[in-house]
Amino acid sequence: VTGFDTVTFLSDFGLVDEFVGIVHRVIRGLAPEVTVIDLTHQIPAHDVRAGALALWRSAPWLAPGVVVAVVDPGVGTTRRAVAVEAAGGSLVLVGPDNGLLAPAAHVGGTPTRAVALTDPAWHLPGGSGAGQERGATFDGRDVFAPVAAHLCTGVDLAELGDPFDPADLVGGGLVLASAGAARVARLGLDVEVLWVDRFGNAQLGVRPATIDALGPRVAVRPSGRVAIRARGYADLAAGQLGLITDSAGLVALCLDRASAADVLGLVAGTTVHLDPAARGRSGAE
Amino acid sequence: VTGFDTVTFLSDFGLVDEFVGIVHRVIRGLAPEVTVIDLTHQIPAHDVRAGALALWRSAPWLAPGVVVAVVDPGVGTTRRAVAVEAAGGSLVLVGPDNGLLAPAAHVGGTPTRAVALTDPAWHLPGGSGAGQERGATFDGRDVFAPVAAHLCTGVDLAELGDPFDPADLVGGGLVLASAGAARVARLGLDVEVLWVDRFGNAQLGVRPATIDALGPRVAVRPSGRVAIRARGYADLAAGQLGLITDSAGLVALCLDRASAADVLGLVAGTTVHLDPAARGRSGAE
Amino acid sequence: VTGFDTVTFLSDFGLVDEFVGIVHRVIRGLAPEVTVIDLTHQIPAHDVRAGALALWRSAPWLAPGVVVAVVDPGVGTTRRAVAVEAAGGSLVLVGPDNGLLAPAAHVGGTPTRAVALTDPAWHLPGGSGAGQERGATFDGRDVFAPVAAHLCTGVDLAELGDPFDPADLVGGGLVLASAGAARVARLGLDVEVLWVDRFGNAQLGVRPATIDALGPRVAVRPSGRVAIRARGYADLAAGQLGLITDSAGLVALCLDRASAADVLGLVAGTTVHLDPAARGRSGAE
Repeated sequence: VTGFDTVTFLSDFGLVDEFVGIVHRVIRGLAPEVTVIDLTHQIPAHDVRAGALALWRSAPWLAPGVVVAVVDPGVGTTRRAVAVEAAGGSLVLVGPDNGLLAPAAHVGGTPTRAVALTDPAWHLPGGSGAGQERGATFDGRDVFAPVAAHLCTGVDLAELGDPFDPADLVGGGLVLASAGAARVARLGLDVEVLWVDRFGNAQLGVRPATIDALGPRVAVRPSGRVAIRARGYADLAAGQLGLITDSAGLVALCLDRASAADVLGLVAGTTVHLDPAARGRSGAE
Repeated sequence: VTGFDTVTFLSDFGLVDEFVGIVHRVIRGLAPEVTVIDLTHQIPAHDVRAGALALWRSAPWLAPGVVVAVVDPGVGTTRRAVAVEAAGGSLVLVGPDNGLLAPAAHVGGTPTRAVALTDPAWHLPGGSGAGQERGATFDGRDVFAPVAAHLCTGVDLAELGDPFDPADLVGGGLVLASAGAARVARLGLDVEVLWVDRFGNAQLGVRPATIDALGPRVAVRPSGRVAIRARGYADLAAGQLGLITDSAGLVALCLDRASAADVLGLVAGTTVHLDPAARGRSGAE
Repeated sequence: VTGFDTVTFLSDFGLVDEFVGIVHRVIRGLAPEVTVIDLTHQIPAHDVRAGALALWRSAPWLAPGVVVAVVDPGVGTTRRAVAVEAAGGSLVLVGPDNGLLAPAAHVGGTPTRAVALTDPAWHLPGGSGAGQERGATFDGRDVFAPVAAHLCTGVDLAELGDPFDPADLVGGGLVLASAGAARVARLGLDVEVLWVDRFGNAQLGVRPATIDALGPRVAVRPSGRVAIRARGYADLAAGQLGLITDSAGLVALCLDRASAADVLGLVAGTTVHLDPAARGRSGAE
């Protein structure tokens, strides 16, 4: 591929300050034909894990294109600024190498190339139109945006700086809960809540097939509530907790038109234990 | 019209999760020449009425184009997914048939055609680039976005699925308060607060001409406050409640640089009663 | 320059109502080739000063282009609606003349031309597609958006209405704290907190060179805390308050991965006094 026409952009910048708009404007100035799409900018400040998960969930939809991702508590320190080629060359992720990029970079195969953004020729020059010298606190504007723009106009990854082995990226692919069916049926499974969305659905770090051995009725500990396996909200009676396949292909705990996370007291990072529910025991359902 | 170059997009997805960005990216992939404009994504979760009203207020500005509207508590159930042709063919509204689309679809005439989105050829295929099978919980991405993109590239409404009579859409045109002048002058008028905007202006479900019979000074019950009919904020002294013609052409209760809704305790859905104010009675003004 | 291809847009409209989207759609209708970039719409309602500062910080990045800025508590009154040419003709700012535009209009030189938007031929016509007459409460849609679109398509500033001397704009260039080195060393300096960003960095209204005379350790009154002069977050130990050069080239009080504003109780508008810190006094550091 020579160049890209779409940049997607995720950060913890929020939408109150002008940071997001400035990044858009810098890309527009250097690559006028490119469309920039905001994924979200309300990743909690400095929450690299939340950003990495949102990027992982989004990754299947982002190619072909360049991704700018900035959740960067280490800006201005020695953490590496990088660009990573993924998805067979159809996606390039640009951002800090702090664990933010790695899970998404492993969607659609292992990342193929990586480079540290050490060549300042592709960054914004110091000193702005206002005549002052600027500080090095806004790499989104000064490094990641111009690099993304140059990638779109056809600059090759290799020109951006020092190459390194993509296996040395901080972090790796997303690790989901996994165990054999016999073990799951006997002992149940510990799973992490990866994400609670706006509607209160609690995404679990496990694929549907992994929990098939739990049967159609599943006890969710420590709440003691029973959830039924369901294909969608239509299968759930009012107040009936469900385990469905969500839009990212993982298992989610949900209620129809209500917040499962609120009812169960779940937040991202909580561990729940799933067990086969005894058939006769439906009182807590 | 063959095709469109603009999609406007309204939802209750919020801006914290990546849902909105993914919908943009899907449209970009299928219709690269199209510009997607966000109306708002902060309709309260599952509040179909609030979404329908925001869409109705926006409708006069949206043609020519396609509208994607998603406030969809019934996603994954049997509620119909539809596309509706309105405004003499210059506007196509795409979304769930739950009352969200009908008021906007009646702006600029009655809707001319409607179709249930039953042909999966125009939807995203199941199974994503990440290799998993996805759940049916995100029709914004899987159904409405691709359908809107295909409409933009020139696919005709009739190709999308099973046609039905637009008169069978759930809901209808917006119903405003209405009564003859003599009745209004004698009995006053009950009106609904349709919307409280960011600045605290309370939009009422009535046109200015309908309340002319109330005279220049209007008592607002149950508050007992008197509002003056005014052409704009400039006519209002500090603290003076006004009834002005708002930007959608309806009557709004407002204060200059203060929140009328806060002062009067109004929220969307509140009913107020408007009466001619006695001339001598200005104490509560 | 004949025309522009980029509009940047700042307002206090928030992102809950559809105001921002409607402005985008109006520009799209009149100037389909133009890209509209949002700077922020979460300027506090009616806070002209906060809007003016955000626009000033952004200005070095916005040319060439048109800026639409709307923080407009006086909409519908006699305040002037204007367009101002700045940055040597490469930037045109469109909005209310209430102090919002002036600081940005003085970035990159004094503004070169100004015009009151008195010619309604460039505004939206009264009465909308919905058939009603609209009120004069949404100049963003009815005046500023169409004027910006027409400027993009090549209409000259002079055609928009009555010219006036740009020196008569309400407000002026941003005034930063200033004093000679000897005076600063002896008496310290009062500086205003201009902005607290999402990360709690408190931007001060002073350039780095002005406070060099304070030495490497600076007492921040009334907190009594000592801040060290630093080049970036990497120079700051955990909990160590720093004075760094921020991304706009001003001095900012900051902590590494924590909110300096929270720790010091600072908000926009607070005045702090900076003094040379006594060498031996490090207890409060």
